[in-house]
Parts: sequence; C-alpha cells; structure tokens
Amino acid sequence: MQTTNASQTPITLRPIGVIRSPHMVAEKTPIQPVFAANIRGTAELQDEYDEGLVDLDGFSHLWLIYVFHQAGEQRLTVKPFLEDVPHGVFATRAPCRPNPIGLSLVRLVRREGRILHLEDIDVLDGTPLLDIKPYITRFDVRDGARCGWQEHVDDETAQQRGRRGFQG
Amino acid sequence: MQTTNASQTPITLRPIGVIRSPHMVAEKTPIQPVFAANIRGTAELQDEYDEGLVDLDGFSHLWLIYVFHQAGEQRLTVKPFLEDVPHGVFATRAPCRPNPIGLSLVRLVRREGRILHLEDIDVLDGTPLLDIKPYITRFDVRDGARCGWQEHVDDETAQQRGRRGFQG
Repeated sequence: MQTTNASQTPITLRPIGVIRSPHMVAEKTPIQPVFAANIRGTAELQDEYDEGLVDLDGFSHLWLIYVFHQAGEQRLTVKPFLEDVPHGVFATRAPCRPNPIGLSLVRLVRREGRILHLEDIDVLDGTPLLDIKPYITRFDVRDGARCGWQEHVDDETAQQRGRRGFQG
Repeated sequence: MQTTNASQTPITLRPIGVIRSPHMVAEKTPIQPVFAANIRGTAELQDEYDEGLVDLDGFSHLWLIYVFHQAGEQRLTVKPFLEDVPHGVFATRAPCRPNPIGLSLVRLVRREGRILHLEDIDVLDGTPLLDIKPYITRFDVRDGARCGWQEHVDDETAQQRGRRGFQG
C-alpha cells in the first residue's frame, strides 16, 4: 500500500533559510518566545523563496518550524526546563526529540525582501529554518485547553526558569 | 562556520508513526481541524516510542507535525482554499510548500499505549507523523494577533470552504 510505505519512508528536507539571533549558547537560550519578549532576530530566506513571502506582512505572528541543530542525542524521558519531574519527551517541548523539530511562535515586525525582522526570538543563532506558517487565530487558538503537568508550574517559576538567565 | 553549514545541510527525518483517519482523498479532506470538528482518527506510534508518550494524556490538545505526503510539486504562489486571491505560499497553510510539513492542532481523547485516539482530524489517512507536541496555552496563544488576508474571509465562508464537502 502506498500509504503504508509513505509512513515508514525517511524524508529529506532542505532548509529554506537561517535564523539569526543574539543567542549563541544553547544552555542560555530562552526555551520559548514568551520568555524571550522583545528579543530581536531575523529569518533570512534563500533568494529562491522570495516570491513565497508575498502578503506575509499582513500577519503579526508567525510559526517558525526549524531544526534543533544542537539538540544532541534523542531521549524519550526528559526533565523539562520548567520542572524537576521526568515526563515522556512528547509531553514536553524539549529539543532532544526523535525528530529534532522546533516550533516557535514569534512576532513579525517587518519584511525586507527575503529578510524577516522578528521579535520574541528563542532560537539559537544559525538555526536551519524549514518552514514558516502564518499564525491564524481561527485555526490556532483553543479555549479551555487542559495543559497537564504545565498547569502545576506557576507563572513566576515559568518566567524565571524559562528565560534561562537572559536579562532582557 | 558550523552554524552556516547547518543552515544549508539537508536533514533526513524518520516518521515516528502514522496517522489514521477517515479521509481517503486529498481533495475532500478538511483543510484545518476547526473544519473537522469531532472527526475521529488515531496516531499510531512505532513501538520504540511508547516511553516518550508518558504524561501526554494530561493534555487535551496536541500539535501534530507531519508530512504532506500527497502535496505534489511546490508552488511559491498559491490560491488558498478559503479565498480566490493568490498569496505567497508562506502566507498560507497550503500543502504545496518547499518543505511539505503539516501542522494540525487536534484533540486528544485518550491514549491506549502507543495509540492516540484523536478528534478534529483534518489529515489524510496514512500520513507519516514526524512529531507530537503538547498544546500549551501559555506558549501558544497570542491575543490580538493580526491575521492578514484571513481577516477578509468571514466565518461562514471559511466553514463552507474549509470543510471541502465533508458532512459531519
């Protein structure tokens, strides 16, 4: 069956560009955009993708999908940054996943050709960018979601641990 | 420079499992989970990832990151399903992207070992699954986001076009 094969076939992706940021050290990089408020960076796409960015600047927020290129070896059980309790890696956003794909919701300040000026950047400098999608409220917001172990982490602790020493 | 190389090096990913759904034909598959309310499906992970799913069932909603395995050739300008106006592909969620990666926010009904029972499935049967992340309100919700051309599409039109004929 075609579908069965597809679900087992490795897929090779080519970065569409690179993310530039002031974060040079993985251990000091905020773990989410909400802990990286106002930190500026850029996404620099390769020339050939310029046309694909038309009308992107109507959106205030973007999903960046990228490679955790310094994630290290995969682990199936991890202690997340926000809590000292181990969880299955798929119940966390930790980088050391079987497929090291990152997902960050950042602010688009402006587009300058194939350069996107961004804020709330929680991504290491030099990160390979795989895709950009617009944040669309009607698609991406759910009211009253249950958030498992995350609900036991209070906001102050989250801010403190999530920033990882970054002084913004 | 290591970082420059990483941003140009192709990356090979191996599916962690497969998504099962009642959607057999791409052209009749709802374009987003919000247009696929209550449609049931599963994510079936390979045996080796069982441990990574521990504590996932504390979360009511999950991000599925997967391969648009029937996306066809990439196009940089597309007319999205919801509107008859062309836009750059990165300003849309269309499948025909340079890297055919899909992102869907679905409901987790329950976990049965390495089988996740899901609702609001807008994904083709047999879709290769790359990653699962928990939906975390504190990370994933932004108030007052501007949503570009999507704001010109009224809810009724969106529902009608987004369902693509699906009668739920």
